[in-house]
Amino acid sequence: MDALIFLAHGSRRQKSNDEVFDLADRIRPLISARYDRVEPAFLEITAPSLSDVISHLLEHQAKTITIYPYFLNSGNHVEQDIPAIVEGFKSADPDCQFILMQHFGLSEEIVDMIVSQILQL
Amino acid sequence: MDALIFLAHGSRRQKSNDEVFDLADRIRPLISARYDRVEPAFLEITAPSLSDVISHLLEHQAKTITIYPYFLNSGNHVEQDIPAIVEGFKSADPDCQFILMQHFGLSEEIVDMIVSQILQL
Repeated sequence: MDALIFLAHGSRRQKSNDEVFDLADRIRPLISARYDRVEPAFLEITAPSLSDVISHLLEHQAKTITIYPYFLNSGNHVEQDIPAIVEGFKSADPDCQFILMQHFGLSEEIVDMIVSQILQL
Repeated sequence: MDALIFLAHGSRRQKSNDEVFDLADRIRPLISARYDRVEPAFLEITAPSLSDVISHLLEHQAKTITIYPYFLNSGNHVEQDIPAIVEGFKSADPDCQFILMQHFGLSEEIVDMIVSQILQL
């Protein structure tokens, strides 16, 4: 089973968390040919946590777990916290392949997206 | 003079702030036909602050100030803090038109962008 985790920060505001669940729901059918499961997860505050989701997927015999960090900036979360959690699981379960993607904010398309929004005003 | 403020959260990590300055620099030439000035600003931690940039633009006779919040989620910053600052300036300077754009995270293109990144793996 190949899984993708859509990882966001987590917020005290339910509306903000709901946006993450909603994004995961919208992404899931669009990548279903490649990923058997697409699961939302949060780094802080909100459940389910990244560790809980990885543990759950490993219990269900995940062969690969790809983590997509939905973060804008290269802060401590992206550069330290997330890699540390993933590395911990890697050494604990060498049978599963973990792929930590670059975070959302590094996308080349962001500038075009911003410009198009501004020029639509 | 028509100005656009590219507004980010601000971070203790210089690299994260540099990404914001860099994005503003990349956006500026692409919208120069419409905006005489494109200025980065930060809501917290990092200078220049949103209030400082708005004050500076008003001193330079800005006719319109458009604020683009580069935030992913509908948190307190997007829903309360930023509108409150903008409203304060609006009533203080009725000669300038303020336009607060919807925040980055509401862009319709985000799902497509995420899916395209994932499928490029």
